[in-house]
Amino acid sequence: MTTPDPKPTADPAAEGVGLVETRSVQLFARDDPLRLAGGARLDEVDVAYETYGHLNETADNAIYICHALTGDAHAAGLHVGEARPGWWDNLIGPGRAIDTDRWFVVSSNLLGGCQGTTGPSSTNPETGEPFGLDFPLLDMSDFVTVHRRLGEHLGVRHWHAVVGGSLGGMQVLEWELTHPEDMDRAVLIASSSRLTAQNIAFSAVGRQAIMRDENFQNGRFVDERTPDVGLSIARMMAHITYMSEDAFTEKFGRSHQYGAPSRGFGIDFAVESYLDHQGETFLTRFDALSYLYLTRVMDYFDPFSRPDALARLQQSPVSNLIISFDTDWRFSTAQSRRIMRTLESARIPVTFREIQSPWGHDSFLLPIEPYHATIRAFLEYDGGGQATHE
Amino acid sequence: MTTPDPKPTADPAAEGVGLVETRSVQLFARDDPLRLAGGARLDEVDVAYETYGHLNETADNAIYICHALTGDAHAAGLHVGEARPGWWDNLIGPGRAIDTDRWFVVSSNLLGGCQGTTGPSSTNPETGEPFGLDFPLLDMSDFVTVHRRLGEHLGVRHWHAVVGGSLGGMQVLEWELTHPEDMDRAVLIASSSRLTAQNIAFSAVGRQAIMRDENFQNGRFVDERTPDVGLSIARMMAHITYMSEDAFTEKFGRSHQYGAPSRGFGIDFAVESYLDHQGETFLTRFDALSYLYLTRVMDYFDPFSRPDALARLQQSPVSNLIISFDTDWRFSTAQSRRIMRTLESARIPVTFREIQSPWGHDSFLLPIEPYHATIRAFLEYDGGGQATHE
Repeated sequence: MTTPDPKPTADPAAEGVGLVETRSVQLFARDDPLRLAGGARLDEVDVAYETYGHLNETADNAIYICHALTGDAHAAGLHVGEARPGWWDNLIGPGRAIDTDRWFVVSSNLLGGCQGTTGPSSTNPETGEPFGLDFPLLDMSDFVTVHRRLGEHLGVRHWHAVVGGSLGGMQVLEWELTHPEDMDRAVLIASSSRLTAQNIAFSAVGRQAIMRDENFQNGRFVDERTPDVGLSIARMMAHITYMSEDAFTEKFGRSHQYGAPSRGFGIDFAVESYLDHQGETFLTRFDALSYLYLTRVMDYFDPFSRPDALARLQQSPVSNLIISFDTDWRFSTAQSRRIMRTLESARIPVTFREIQSPWGHDSFLLPIEPYHATIRAFLEYDGGGQATHE
Repeated sequence: MTTPDPKPTADPAAEGVGLVETRSVQLFARDDPLRLAGGARLDEVDVAYETYGHLNETADNAIYICHALTGDAHAAGLHVGEARPGWWDNLIGPGRAIDTDRWFVVSSNLLGGCQGTTGPSSTNPETGEPFGLDFPLLDMSDFVTVHRRLGEHLGVRHWHAVVGGSLGGMQVLEWELTHPEDMDRAVLIASSSRLTAQNIAFSAVGRQAIMRDENFQNGRFVDERTPDVGLSIARMMAHITYMSEDAFTEKFGRSHQYGAPSRGFGIDFAVESYLDHQGETFLTRFDALSYLYLTRVMDYFDPFSRPDALARLQQSPVSNLIISFDTDWRFSTAQSRRIMRTLESARIPVTFREIQSPWGHDSFLLPIEPYHATIRAFLEYDGGGQATHE
């Protein structure tokens, strides 16, 4: 591997979208509740979101960003007092691949999440206590329902593009299959239309680590004792699957964190220190119940298995860009190809690119030039012509 | 994949080595303690072992079996009252690849293990309490020291072959590098001379699950409350890495354990049920402390990094058979090739085979005909001639 370790830009505030704030809006309320695909109802739904750039007068320059499992609304720019930019800041900003000089970009926290949008740790208005496991099970289509409502709130009924990586790409797929008239373009990155048994297995073990934690208490955490052990174990394990084996070797090899071997069961190898850090920092920004709910939505997602799954999209075709990364073994190129083949069989226009990157699944978060150039070109391309594969 | 799911033979007792017993012997005692590579001393070491077949008068037909991380001395045959044969019964028996009509086979439980050989849950003779984390850290060479002593006890000072898979193969490698005069042949299956960062990462997360379990109590389990949650999580996660992604797909796909989806956080997909079962049954036969000690030996193993690592073996060459499986992503063919190349660079005879098998790392436990035929031929081949690669 010769690719240098990707670094965030030196001064994102100077070059990116600058200071941003996460806003919150109540999109569903008791007199207009959110009716979920599974039949349950949520009487209050608040959504955290950010926007970058400006909506033009014809409201036809809007792009929706769907985040992955552990993302949030803060996709780009800087929050006051924080040094770390949004999670997709290298992609979104003035002059960047998703160019905020041209596009109006909307990013929201998922329903069921824990970064400002209503989720299982929110207060249940009926009891005044957190929902816990009384929060209803969610479906991929519920995310789409909430995204569409946020669009209405912002005056956007049609999207130039809807873009997402990993779980984000699954939302994009669900959205285009059920409401293709909402968008011109769909960008699905490192995504899947159907988890494999191995995918489910990794998520299942993470969930078991959480649910078997002594503090889990069937989802009713007592005195703020949260299942931190389980959640950090789940995160450490998942993180291994987000990187390629070669990336681990290149980044850590067999080097020792403190120079010489310490020989014991504590942290010794550098890779152990890295995973420990991943597990610990995750606790500061994520919630064990959201981890259960969101991973379970992914397990059950299998939209092509539905009768007439492609009928609506065939009536109102959306241009698709599907991107995979060659070393991604969590959501492999084979999974992206399956989406491509299925859409093509219904004569939906698809551009497919497998991007070479040594970094595995997390490549979708990294500033890889051919990857970003592909997205830029697809967003700016003015319709017509031939879909391509590479 | 067209390979059928491997099944144990219908009536192993009838065809295999028949009824066997695990025996125990004290190989080191206070007046002759085991001095470990790390400098510590064990004043009492009991070893559990089994033998199959008969040692001939010249004592030159003996084969030593080294087990993997979670194996034990019971490699072949049946214990009274048990229906399940030993873990390598398909390989070892009359007429089988390791033919007990011809070879005298010895299999022992590892030092640090939990199936009859002294380990961290054994009683510390100095305190009358279990060792816990006072048990000394082990080194791969300590396993070899104990294996050699068992050989002496059984009247075997020279082995026709030493055979092992996974961690077992690591023991074989250590043994031939340090005492090549002990053996004619070495068989290393699905093994490694040096774990990768990803290998270490998976083991590290398993250990963290154990050590962060509320019952771990720094290794001093109270009132028989053992860290079962952590150990079962470690096992479930590790088990995912022992199978190929395709094997998971073929075996489980997205099928539901109870026919229709149950939609919740309990066991729903068949793969969840399988992992849960793996985690639970593991608790009945394995010990959390042994898991820590044995995985840590693997992390630190890196024999080719030692000065003059190959000098002894060059003076007394051993014929090597190195076998990998094409879908093994835990100890990949690349890792076996590294051993092959390193030995060959020292002009040690090596036969290398990559066996096609859809089952991943666990293939080494399965009755795959070309795999067993290769071992049989290698054991029966009468020296001389050319090493081969495929």
